[in-house]
Amino acid sequence: MNIHDLDTPALVVDLDRLERNIARMADLVREGGKRLRPHVKTHKTPEVGRMQLAAGASGITVAKPGEAEAFADAGFDDIFLANQIVGSAKIERLLALARRVRLLVGVDSLDVAEPLSRRAAAAGLRIPVRLELDTGLDRAGLRTVEQAVALGKDLARLEGIAVQGVFTHEGHLARMSPEARRPAALEAAAKVRQVAAALRAAGIPAEEASVGSTPGARDMAAAPGIDEMRPGVYVYYDLMQVQRGTIAADDCALSVLTTVISRPSREVAITDGGTKTFSGDAGPEGSRFGLVTNDPSARFDWANEEHGHLDLRDATIQPRVGDVLRIVPWHACAAVNMHDTVFACRGERVEAVWQVAARGRIR
Amino acid sequence: MNIHDLDTPALVVDLDRLERNIARMADLVREGGKRLRPHVKTHKTPEVGRMQLAAGASGITVAKPGEAEAFADAGFDDIFLANQIVGSAKIERLLALARRVRLLVGVDSLDVAEPLSRRAAAAGLRIPVRLELDTGLDRAGLRTVEQAVALGKDLARLEGIAVQGVFTHEGHLARMSPEARRPAALEAAAKVRQVAAALRAAGIPAEEASVGSTPGARDMAAAPGIDEMRPGVYVYYDLMQVQRGTIAADDCALSVLTTVISRPSREVAITDGGTKTFSGDAGPEGSRFGLVTNDPSARFDWANEEHGHLDLRDATIQPRVGDVLRIVPWHACAAVNMHDTVFACRGERVEAVWQVAARGRIR
Repeated sequence: MNIHDLDTPALVVDLDRLERNIARMADLVREGGKRLRPHVKTHKTPEVGRMQLAAGASGITVAKPGEAEAFADAGFDDIFLANQIVGSAKIERLLALARRVRLLVGVDSLDVAEPLSRRAAAAGLRIPVRLELDTGLDRAGLRTVEQAVALGKDLARLEGIAVQGVFTHEGHLARMSPEARRPAALEAAAKVRQVAAALRAAGIPAEEASVGSTPGARDMAAAPGIDEMRPGVYVYYDLMQVQRGTIAADDCALSVLTTVISRPSREVAITDGGTKTFSGDAGPEGSRFGLVTNDPSARFDWANEEHGHLDLRDATIQPRVGDVLRIVPWHACAAVNMHDTVFACRGERVEAVWQVAARGRIR
Repeated sequence: MNIHDLDTPALVVDLDRLERNIARMADLVREGGKRLRPHVKTHKTPEVGRMQLAAGASGITVAKPGEAEAFADAGFDDIFLANQIVGSAKIERLLALARRVRLLVGVDSLDVAEPLSRRAAAAGLRIPVRLELDTGLDRAGLRTVEQAVALGKDLARLEGIAVQGVFTHEGHLARMSPEARRPAALEAAAKVRQVAAALRAAGIPAEEASVGSTPGARDMAAAPGIDEMRPGVYVYYDLMQVQRGTIAADDCALSVLTTVISRPSREVAITDGGTKTFSGDAGPEGSRFGLVTNDPSARFDWANEEHGHLDLRDATIQPRVGDVLRIVPWHACAAVNMHDTVFACRGERVEAVWQVAARGRIR
């Protein structure tokens, strides 16, 4: 099948770029002496996860038990569930997973850890947990060294779980300028290191210190005392990463093919891809929903559910009804989650159709 | 099953409110002497579509061939595909649909109509089409009476299709204040009426004039010369409709159950529902992603993919880890599209689990 035969909207992956992105991150992390455990929430696709493992990743990271199950079903056997797992239904699924694969889980409070401890102990299991630290994102995670040591001591008294390490998602780096990013990354790494050291000093075996973000990857790879990195979006990249200076536009491996369906005026082209294709995640004005690679000066600033609105006032192209445009989405992780399938292309040849196996696994 | 037994995040529908919303819109349209052909892109769920038909709807409206197929498979036999259908793959599917159900299709240019005409004629079919008019949304659709009459005359010469009417989506009303809305709705209705009359005067049998939006429904029901209305979001309503003055918060039938998974501080609660649960569609500051019904002064202004961030500075609640909050999403249509299932509840009893059968049918 040729890429021109695809009905639109279609999510397409450029295999050459994907392989290059995977190899580069694997090299960067290896050269920094770290292990790589990519977050698969970006692609949600076992085929891509296997490429990451083949390039040297030691395991994968997921956000939900449903994602862990989808990847365990596909043969992945080393999974970090980097989230707080709350509620008896999810804990039972977590225990079932722990019997099938090497499973690590996040905790940031006794309220999260106690039910897990109780059920694991009753089931005769001992689940390795990692303390989640907040290093500036202001989301879940312990805020201070003292909080972490206090929780570590509490956890050490519980059956059914064992503190294995600490982790953070330094997602706040994505909001920063490239100049501000480096000191903030080193600060986050220092905090993780400090907490791990304090836990060990208190007799708690926090063996592994794990960080994770694509914008911070270069600095984190060079940071001392970090054992593991969990970037995600680097496999595909997206317009957000381009605008934030992480990468150049032609490193983006993911795009959406979309067809012009109406040309109400010289200034406007309407396409068949809206927020139910690209997601509602959008950047600041200029090209909020995506970058039109056929002509980056065609602005994609407005979308309805099934309509994309291209502003052609500054564009050189005058596409006709039926013309196909290729658009890099603002947020790859969110765009992928709108699709059941993704078309893997080598140049113009469609080499494979992949199921987005973990799409919508929100529980 | 009880609603408290549901694992989260879970999309739940209050059946009492849903039935009331469906009955009220059916009454409004009937009293206005119009036919109702609701847009099912909001719920994408055959069970809800059947409730709309049972309340008197004459058929349904969809945006994509894939949605039409999902509803045709579920037994719906009168479907308006209110969009421009471009590309040979979609045209073949459209012809297959036209053999199974009464199918109407939108067109706004000869570029869209000609390939459809050619393939339909070759297949021995005659597809009823409706001219799409722009009445202020600035999306697809003919801008002027003259353009519409010129296209109508061109279409009259083509085989395989037959002009059956005109339609508009007056979606621009949703952006307006309640006061500005009424004159704009009447203006849109007048334009549709004027185009239909001009087509008929030119000998083109444009029998039906169709409009569609929830915010404009009250005014459109009373407007002369309109035959059919296609509102969508009224079945569920959402925070967008509440903030735009269409409806009160306790008319919203759709909400998301989400669990508090972290309490990093007194001011913040982190839940297990982010943009992959609520969609990335969000309103202006205050409660951008949704309204926390447990306490509307808890602000849901920030979300990551799998994390909701509640700002409790003005809230009276101090939820604990494990507590379940009920949140009305900003945009019902977009939120539903993130879920494979929806739980239909009568009070606290879960009466049914519905598949969102047309979710993700973007082609």
